[in-house]
Amino acid sequence: MAPPTATVAPAGYSLSELAQLTGAQVEGDGALRVTHVADLESAQEGAIAFMTDPAYRAQLATTRAAAVIVSPDVAGETPLPKLVHANPYATYARVAALLHPPIAPEAGVHPTATIGAGARIAPTAAVAAQATIGAGTMIGERVRIGAGCAIGAGASIGDDTLLHANVTVYDRCVVGPRCVIHSGVVIGADGFGMVEEGGRWLKVPQLGRAVIGADVEIGANTTVDRGTIGDTVIEDDVKLDNLIQVGHNCRIGRHTAIAGCVGIAGSTRIGSNCRIGGAAMISGHIDICDGTLIRGATTIFASIDKPGDYTGVFPTLDHKTWRRLAIEWPQMATFGRRLRALERKAEKSAAQAPAAADRGEEET
Amino acid sequence: MAPPTATVAPAGYSLSELAQLTGAQVEGDGALRVTHVADLESAQEGAIAFMTDPAYRAQLATTRAAAVIVSPDVAGETPLPKLVHANPYATYARVAALLHPPIAPEAGVHPTATIGAGARIAPTAAVAAQATIGAGTMIGERVRIGAGCAIGAGASIGDDTLLHANVTVYDRCVVGPRCVIHSGVVIGADGFGMVEEGGRWLKVPQLGRAVIGADVEIGANTTVDRGTIGDTVIEDDVKLDNLIQVGHNCRIGRHTAIAGCVGIAGSTRIGSNCRIGGAAMISGHIDICDGTLIRGATTIFASIDKPGDYTGVFPTLDHKTWRRLAIEWPQMATFGRRLRALERKAEKSAAQAPAAADRGEEET
Amino acid sequence: MAPPTATVAPAGYSLSELAQLTGAQVEGDGALRVTHVADLESAQEGAIAFMTDPAYRAQLATTRAAAVIVSPDVAGETPLPKLVHANPYATYARVAALLHPPIAPEAGVHPTATIGAGARIAPTAAVAAQATIGAGTMIGERVRIGAGCAIGAGASIGDDTLLHANVTVYDRCVVGPRCVIHSGVVIGADGFGMVEEGGRWLKVPQLGRAVIGADVEIGANTTVDRGTIGDTVIEDDVKLDNLIQVGHNCRIGRHTAIAGCVGIAGSTRIGSNCRIGGAAMISGHIDICDGTLIRGATTIFASIDKPGDYTGVFPTLDHKTWRRLAIEWPQMATFGRRLRALERKAEKSAAQAPAAADRGEEET
Repeated sequence: MAPPTATVAPAGYSLSELAQLTGAQVEGDGALRVTHVADLESAQEGAIAFMTDPAYRAQLATTRAAAVIVSPDVAGETPLPKLVHANPYATYARVAALLHPPIAPEAGVHPTATIGAGARIAPTAAVAAQATIGAGTMIGERVRIGAGCAIGAGASIGDDTLLHANVTVYDRCVVGPRCVIHSGVVIGADGFGMVEEGGRWLKVPQLGRAVIGADVEIGANTTVDRGTIGDTVIEDDVKLDNLIQVGHNCRIGRHTAIAGCVGIAGSTRIGSNCRIGGAAMISGHIDICDGTLIRGATTIFASIDKPGDYTGVFPTLDHKTWRRLAIEWPQMATFGRRLRALERKAEKSAAQAPAAADRGEEET
Repeated sequence: MAPPTATVAPAGYSLSELAQLTGAQVEGDGALRVTHVADLESAQEGAIAFMTDPAYRAQLATTRAAAVIVSPDVAGETPLPKLVHANPYATYARVAALLHPPIAPEAGVHPTATIGAGARIAPTAAVAAQATIGAGTMIGERVRIGAGCAIGAGASIGDDTLLHANVTVYDRCVVGPRCVIHSGVVIGADGFGMVEEGGRWLKVPQLGRAVIGADVEIGANTTVDRGTIGDTVIEDDVKLDNLIQVGHNCRIGRHTAIAGCVGIAGSTRIGSNCRIGGAAMISGHIDICDGTLIRGATTIFASIDKPGDYTGVFPTLDHKTWRRLAIEWPQMATFGRRLRALERKAEKSAAQAPAAADRGEEET
Repeated sequence: MAPPTATVAPAGYSLSELAQLTGAQVEGDGALRVTHVADLESAQEGAIAFMTDPAYRAQLATTRAAAVIVSPDVAGETPLPKLVHANPYATYARVAALLHPPIAPEAGVHPTATIGAGARIAPTAAVAAQATIGAGTMIGERVRIGAGCAIGAGASIGDDTLLHANVTVYDRCVVGPRCVIHSGVVIGADGFGMVEEGGRWLKVPQLGRAVIGADVEIGANTTVDRGTIGDTVIEDDVKLDNLIQVGHNCRIGRHTAIAGCVGIAGSTRIGSNCRIGGAAMISGHIDICDGTLIRGATTIFASIDKPGDYTGVFPTLDHKTWRRLAIEWPQMATFGRRLRALERKAEKSAAQAPAAADRGEEET
């Protein structure tokens, strides 16, 4: 693998500099300069690699990396110059950010961008080509608005937030500081609210906002609907992967991470510090308590009030076995009852059998 | 919760005016003016709140709302001025639309929009910044095309339809009147059609259209593919939530509502008046009859010809229980057979046991 | 169904011309001209229809098509002029492409498009309105970039590739030749990578690329994340439907086809020649071997090293049956053990019963 040249800092950093900037300890030649990160297996000259999983010990012995990032318990296993830290992956993340800084666009509004009346764009912000910023919207310091983004009226984008290309933010919605919003994300579309009347649907106006906290990352093509009356709220430090749906009036608590393809129906509250696996589906109007782990592809129909590790996935079978099972399925609801009936009979007959057995034995 | 000020009609309406406009009855001071809607719990001065669910009776007693919307059977439970209607949520929806009218953009084509040769844009329509309208496309009266929308050639958008920002409509597709299409929606992309030949895929041209009826709402980032030869059709008054996939040649019947993250494979027909829960998955080339209810996260593999309430979701377990169950799984297809075998034996032995039991008793 | 007039080649082709261009055999009047394709049922004058499934034999007898495309074993069943080929659907696909050629946009860069410094746009390429091409990006011969597309810096789009409107390609990503990328697709967004430290998430820079091979088609609103250090790779001739998520560092092998709404978590490798049904969900860090068939809505948690036909879907039940089953569920993990216990007892008692039965008979 070639190093990602476009973002390599040409001079790189010495290990001592990196140690100072990341809080790690140097072991070996602190003056050694590294120019890019790599994994152990594909690392070449000038690279600093990392090991976070003991499964990769063999690669540690054979890597061509110039230096490595490891935890203290592994430090003795390689003679390479190294950065040592109790959380080597966090140290790696910091080193990677230092060696591969993103190319920041120049501040200013591209001439093809369209800015609504009364919008306030901080002088340090960068608004890319073809973007539109609605009337009265506030764009904070050092914000980067990607090409083709459409920000509605009366919205607000916090300092240091990055919107990649083609993000849509509806009127009056709020994105906090230091967020990263990926392409195709839609923040603040109407929730799915309607009322039936005479065999027709009547739209329920969606008057609330979508309010995104600080340090939130939202993956490509994820959607966060606005609230019906109140707001849909994503709290600080929440991380959402791609293609997630967050329904109206949901609240997702601080530091919760949700993997791709998850659907969360309206008015559900997810606590803080939760982890939700990919493709999980969560019903509306329920509460998931803080610290809950929901495994991938699990469907949650009812509130969870006890932190735990929840799963509900049909195991994979070869198709023929599955077909036999599927045929049995409608009867399966009777199995418990029938088992209990058989068990009761077996107990009764066990109570009687000894007599017969004794007698039998007497007879032989 | 602050009222959504950006859309408040400053003067508001009196209860009598609202009653006349919505068909509700006033009880109490008809001259009372309200300026915004709220829910019972967070309502403050000037708000009109609503109660549709008896579970909120306690809030009805303590609300600070100036007025409420209730059904006749609840009207006696509060001394507040009120609007009374058999469908209080529909009345609420109408009142909310009156008190919080959307800010309509000015008619006309924004100078940064690109209009193809021969496109016909009604004079009352509004085409926002950076939008593109293809050659020969027709845009109806009072249509609003959001920023960055890309409408292909030979397409048609019906009167009073609203396309939010960054919607894509492919060539020759049709969107009916009074629709609301949310950001990121893609109408008319090629269906997933290819034929295998010599270990390679050959693309099957997707020549049909996607045709969206009247009064349809389509949620953010939903995709509706065009037909292979004929059309993919979404009938009138259908409501689609976010991140739904509608395959080529599907037809979705009138007044059907489909929640988020649902996938519908190609050539499937869904009847009218169906309700499909979030994350349900529906196979291709099947028919779902009118009036069918499919619960969230259910997978439908075969046609349904009897309206009913269908579910197929693996219940959620704590992870340890699930692991024990998963180990048993491949054997589970044998349980029914084995139970029946045991039951037959138990019947036989029951037929014989009385004799033995009688004899036993005789002997003691 | 009216023929899709916008793409009809006015003069059409004679059967002999079509036979020559597609490698099929003519039977009947080779001079007969057809102008458009249709299905058997709705075909009218001038249409050529096709039959690939014996289930449509009745329609073959009554069709009003001018000519048909059939396989040799069916050729004798209709007196109509025909094209005969062992793979009639492939012949149909070729005929449809000939009769309905897409309208190619004129080469050149639309005046409203924004081209970054040092970008190289082939003179035969067409860049539509409002598109943005980043600095140093290469756009190949005959490439078509749709309206509103945002291509980052240092990216590359191969010859003859078509990007429909509103596609996003991040910096440094690569799309091969002859690809079709549908609207709303996001290529190269950051993978979902972060490390926990002191109760906060620290972002792991996503430094790799997304690299798309030749002849790949990607459906609307699908997302392919860039790699963490190495690349995410989609090999040649892969076909991805709509709303699919491909996580960082995945590799999808040659000629694999994946239906809509599938989620693939990070670092998973899917072999070549696989078929994955809609809404399947595949965990991260696993390997799926070449030639694997995974049925729709199946969840894959572990590597598959034997090609086969895998399914794991909860069958659909009427809701009442499902509720009874759901109540039994937590106990179901005990059913296997309890069945075995009963079977052992039944065996034991069977071993003893004959004696009792014999004796009983003796006594009567």
